[in-house]
Amino acid sequence: MRCEVVAIGTELLLGQIVDTNSAYIGEQLALAGIDSHFQTKVGDNLDRMVSALRIALDRSDAVIVCGGLGPTQDDITREAIAQVMGVDLELDDDVAAHIESIFSSRGRRMPMNNLRQAEVPVGATAIRDPQPGTAPGLICPVGEKVVYAVPGVPREMRELIDEAVLPDLTERAGGRAAIVSRTLRTWGDSESGLAERLADRVAALDRVGGVTLAYLASGIEGIKIRLTAKAASVEAAEALLAEEEAQVRAVLGDIVFGVDDETIEFAILSLLRERGLTLGLAESLTGGMMGSRICDVAGASDVFRGSIVSYASDVKYDVLGVPEGPVVSAEAAKAMASGARRVLGADVGLAVTGVAGPDPQEGKEPGTVFVGLDLGPAGGDPGPEAVELLLYRGDRRQTREFSVISALSILRSRLLSAP
Amino acid sequence: MRCEVVAIGTELLLGQIVDTNSAYIGEQLALAGIDSHFQTKVGDNLDRMVSALRIALDRSDAVIVCGGLGPTQDDITREAIAQVMGVDLELDDDVAAHIESIFSSRGRRMPMNNLRQAEVPVGATAIRDPQPGTAPGLICPVGEKVVYAVPGVPREMRELIDEAVLPDLTERAGGRAAIVSRTLRTWGDSESGLAERLADRVAALDRVGGVTLAYLASGIEGIKIRLTAKAASVEAAEALLAEEEAQVRAVLGDIVFGVDDETIEFAILSLLRERGLTLGLAESLTGGMMGSRICDVAGASDVFRGSIVSYASDVKYDVLGVPEGPVVSAEAAKAMASGARRVLGADVGLAVTGVAGPDPQEGKEPGTVFVGLDLGPAGGDPGPEAVELLLYRGDRRQTREFSVISALSILRSRLLSAP
Repeated sequence: MRCEVVAIGTELLLGQIVDTNSAYIGEQLALAGIDSHFQTKVGDNLDRMVSALRIALDRSDAVIVCGGLGPTQDDITREAIAQVMGVDLELDDDVAAHIESIFSSRGRRMPMNNLRQAEVPVGATAIRDPQPGTAPGLICPVGEKVVYAVPGVPREMRELIDEAVLPDLTERAGGRAAIVSRTLRTWGDSESGLAERLADRVAALDRVGGVTLAYLASGIEGIKIRLTAKAASVEAAEALLAEEEAQVRAVLGDIVFGVDDETIEFAILSLLRERGLTLGLAESLTGGMMGSRICDVAGASDVFRGSIVSYASDVKYDVLGVPEGPVVSAEAAKAMASGARRVLGADVGLAVTGVAGPDPQEGKEPGTVFVGLDLGPAGGDPGPEAVELLLYRGDRRQTREFSVISALSILRSRLLSAP
Repeated sequence: MRCEVVAIGTELLLGQIVDTNSAYIGEQLALAGIDSHFQTKVGDNLDRMVSALRIALDRSDAVIVCGGLGPTQDDITREAIAQVMGVDLELDDDVAAHIESIFSSRGRRMPMNNLRQAEVPVGATAIRDPQPGTAPGLICPVGEKVVYAVPGVPREMRELIDEAVLPDLTERAGGRAAIVSRTLRTWGDSESGLAERLADRVAALDRVGGVTLAYLASGIEGIKIRLTAKAASVEAAEALLAEEEAQVRAVLGDIVFGVDDETIEFAILSLLRERGLTLGLAESLTGGMMGSRICDVAGASDVFRGSIVSYASDVKYDVLGVPEGPVVSAEAAKAMASGARRVLGADVGLAVTGVAGPDPQEGKEPGTVFVGLDLGPAGGDPGPEAVELLLYRGDRRQTREFSVISALSILRSRLLSAP
């Protein structure tokens, strides 16, 4: 069973709206084990909509059209589908009565335009909106194939997809396969480095089938490895995934810091919470980005004390107690970490200082970053230490983002190896 | 001239990534006056990529392919384009040397995989990445038509689109009308409020033609008003724009804080620099986001001293000198602003404290935010003051983003009205 998505709307082509609907529908199709090989965006133009629908129906068994079901003159999805079906539109009295009742229940008169929404291609079935609303969806048979129409309003779209389209598709698909996927997040090796280390695994998967593996470099989110498994049931696919995840973890070790939505910040907070430790930061080139990311995790407040953003050198000297001298240095990073512990009353201090670029600073190249750590007595106290990194990627913001994930990743590996 | 976009990546079809690249490219094509009628997403599958490219080339003059240029086995855009062109791939020695030099400048060995990125369809031209990076773009002639390939990494994609693809497309399009646009950024009124205030301007523009006006709510970037002018020459279009910008500014006044890429942070830094003032921050719910945004502006260091991210209440008391008591309050905000001035040695102190949500805190609803200001003697010293805001938009991150732009906007208006 193959199903494509056609998203309707000139505003999508013009980039005024990002098409998140297709992403949602694509994810739901994958989870339901239905293949989806193409997604198309087309503007509010009848001929081009008809053409896009015909191309999609030609190569797939089902098409979900999203958008263009509203009451205005540029909402012409109904007309386009009718043309593809080779039929006329007719007024569906039930739908018309339903729409009229929604307006009257709000004490409003229905504008005549809204009657357009009760027009249905002959042979199609209107899906009554499960929640009060004015845009019904449509199930439109085209020979042995089918076109579904859902509104472009995300909430209405999601309801119709979940409650009407997917059940209908699943029934048509009969004994379907289940597809599930899982993303492992890593930091500590490049995308091509990961590919080399996992080359044997990929070759083994190619021989056996059932599971595929893909890489995705995602900046501050880490480099992701996505495992996708296809099997007769969700349970069987989950079992394949679990087995492959174990294999990949055995190859990569600790550089896997999280699964799916788990960020490095989430990993650090969980690890510190487990050990009953609080965290204080001292930031220079990152300017507060590390603290900001940590606060994105709900419930950060039991671990996170705060951050001293010491952008000016004399703030490092005066507030954090860094000895006067170069501030892009291992000495400064260590003193910042200890200062963060002391000033913020935290168990663990983590610091970042470096050159964001574009110009060198203190004779150091852009991307030169020192990460300082002070784990304190509660963390096993090996004394403050510093790690030097070279992270420049040609862009100030990227350098800062790589600094954040690298610093948190270094703290994580120290905590994991601490007694 | 018609140009389509084909976005490559199974992860796009599966909804694991939302395709924002196509939206960006669509917007740029529209601004350049180039029609774009279809956008397609297709997975990492050679036959389907070739099919999607052929369909697109059949109905348009140019195609921009985005993604699939990386070093791994599933990056097969080069192969698909070569097949559509009916040619082989060959190693481009210049590109290979360039990629190798990037690795060696980072003191790293180039994995063999990366040599794949130096393979180019015979007859195609590699676009050297304007910034150091490892994924060159391609210009691939197909008869009278053309396929452009750009990487899927947004920053690299944008650079290649702006600096190589659009100029080439524009040249091919020949004697077209000039379309230029300018974006005015605002904060301080809602989108519908702006629309009401500008209703007369829009009506006037509709009568005369040549200039259009559109709104775009962009979160922490403000609410944008985009003016687009079309005329026989760039100069004539620029003149129309300048005239309309003056009209819009006359209606809206100080709530326009920037033009095009000028963020509120840029506006604040410029204003403080003009007046020879330095800035210190105290942040609670924003967690460092305000400092991080300010550091995004190159050259922030002559104005920005730092930020005390006082997430825990006792950090507010102990480091900033906030009197013990409620921390989501006008009193706390004022004391935080004064504390930031004092601790960071800054002329002007700006503070934010509030409830990010989802739960209430100290009996205050999510979105309750107090902005504290202390302009100090150099800023005219009206004494510390606080402003209460209600910013909740149903999401932790959004509440924090609105807090940042609102706080900076309040500081801006105080500085503008200071003697």
